Amino acid sequence: MTARIIDGKALAESIRNKVAAEAAELKRSHGIVPGLAAVLVGENPASQVYVRNKVKQTTEAGLASFEHVLPAETTQDDLLALVRQLNADPKVHGILVQLPLPPQIDPDLVIATIDPAKDVDGFHVENAGRLVVGQESLVPCTPQGSVLLAKTVHPDLTGLEAVVLGRSNIVGKPVAQLLIAESATVTVAHSRTRDLEAVCRRADILVVAVGRPEMVKGSWIKPGATVIDVGINRVPGENGKSRLVGDVDFKEAMEVAGAITPVPGGVGPMTIACLLANTLKAAMVANGLTPPSF
Amino acid sequence: MTARIIDGKALAESIRNKVAAEAAELKRSHGIVPGLAAVLVGENPASQVYVRNKVKQTTEAGLASFEHVLPAETTQDDLLALVRQLNADPKVHGILVQLPLPPQIDPDLVIATIDPAKDVDGFHVENAGRLVVGQESLVPCTPQGSVLLAKTVHPDLTGLEAVVLGRSNIVGKPVAQLLIAESATVTVAHSRTRDLEAVCRRADILVVAVGRPEMVKGSWIKPGATVIDVGINRVPGENGKSRLVGDVDFKEAMEVAGAITPVPGGVGPMTIACLLANTLKAAMVANGLTPPSF
Repeated sequence: MTARIIDGKALAESIRNKVAAEAAELKRSHGIVPGLAAVLVGENPASQVYVRNKVKQTTEAGLASFEHVLPAETTQDDLLALVRQLNADPKVHGILVQLPLPPQIDPDLVIATIDPAKDVDGFHVENAGRLVVGQESLVPCTPQGSVLLAKTVHPDLTGLEAVVLGRSNIVGKPVAQLLIAESATVTVAHSRTRDLEAVCRRADILVVAVGRPEMVKGSWIKPGATVIDVGINRVPGENGKSRLVGDVDFKEAMEVAGAITPVPGGVGPMTIACLLANTLKAAMVANGLTPPSF
Repeated sequence: MTARIIDGKALAESIRNKVAAEAAELKRSHGIVPGLAAVLVGENPASQVYVRNKVKQTTEAGLASFEHVLPAETTQDDLLALVRQLNADPKVHGILVQLPLPPQIDPDLVIATIDPAKDVDGFHVENAGRLVVGQESLVPCTPQGSVLLAKTVHPDLTGLEAVVLGRSNIVGKPVAQLLIAESATVTVAHSRTRDLEAVCRRADILVVAVGRPEMVKGSWIKPGATVIDVGINRVPGENGKSRLVGDVDFKEAMEVAGAITPVPGGVGPMTIACLLANTLKAAMVANGLTPPSF
């Protein structure tokens, strides 16, 4: 058996295209251009690449991009002042502060200062709370992308056994909440779980977000299961080069799973696509309009 | 095998005693008396009994009780005005609006209007969000009581398989989050789960909150498991009288489980005890003091 590969690049592109079409219509009919402000503090190379990608995809979708690059020694007060200024700016509908932040800045305080209505990363406790109780909210992008990918295989997740491996606030927990809302039977497993392998093997849908290269082996996967691999790990490759691998042993999983996301090209591209969708949504809600679903 | 009966009345009493001792010390050392405002709209007999019990136990623990009973035809605006007045009242540290509310009033709006720092029911989205991300919060009382009862059997829940049957915002979901924070492996099961019986039988700790009298049978329980029965259902009894039963078939469960909460006398008494503990906590936090843990 060879698993079907779930094409995250293609789904992300179709979401970006839908965002672009909706944004064009919003501009035409209401003169509104959704705006995303990205704040980068310091010179983390990975963050720089990521923010550059966001800016590029934001403008390509016809959204306005406002980039704020601050020096590594920026004080917490100065960053909070910028966030408040962006909260008050009517051209800015989404604010994203790239993590990690330098050690002199408390990330929880920064996130708490972002207007929840502009919190397109979905990390504010108000959005976390709205998600868990089922109120309309801005949903974290990677979890949203993971579930959209699972739904390309199972349009209806009702009653399926889902196992989420990892209980982080930014991936594992929101994925679990989204799957509960989709009426799956959801198990949250983690490093303290006894017999992790057996628990994972119960899953019709296995979402892995642990940040450990190729930890999940073929024997952990129920034959025919759908595997969503959120991990992106850089490991030594051939000829002194590095390569990217997921949290799942892709080669082994391909022999057992029914469908699987590759790394790269699976969950990764979905994150920015969902960020753009959230920015569109925030702009529409801010103007009293009903956003489309994705 | 006969299960050990988990004595919720005794644990609730010890919590109330601890609240009373801490409240006495707080009054002596800081002149602060924690105050709980209970708001009852209309004449739901069950709610009246419940609020009367709360008032009694509140004053017995040395806390101040402020009871507001409003007519069934109270407008939403009038109720919101009262909530705002209680938010501003420095003698009131905890506010509880008894549900259900009459149909002209939106309960979500009322809960959203309560100051999260005084939301001793833990239903505000800010407290729901703080609970899920692991920030200090006011935790819903029945879920907190359920987990405290489970911990009388397993002081360390790490790695245990927990199954929460029911996914309501007021019980199932917060119980699941508390158990995840305790490092249990947590499955949320519900009416759409396939083979509910088999899923429940995986549980070392089974928490049932479905509101269906005696739905969980002995065959659903893993031998030796701990069963926390959140249900309180009134059913016809002998001689035309009614009697209270849980969501678990107690007689059957007694033969299989290792420990089980009875109904009444299990989770029920814990709810008000945890409410008083939350009120003490809210009063201490409001005054910059560190509350004790329970």
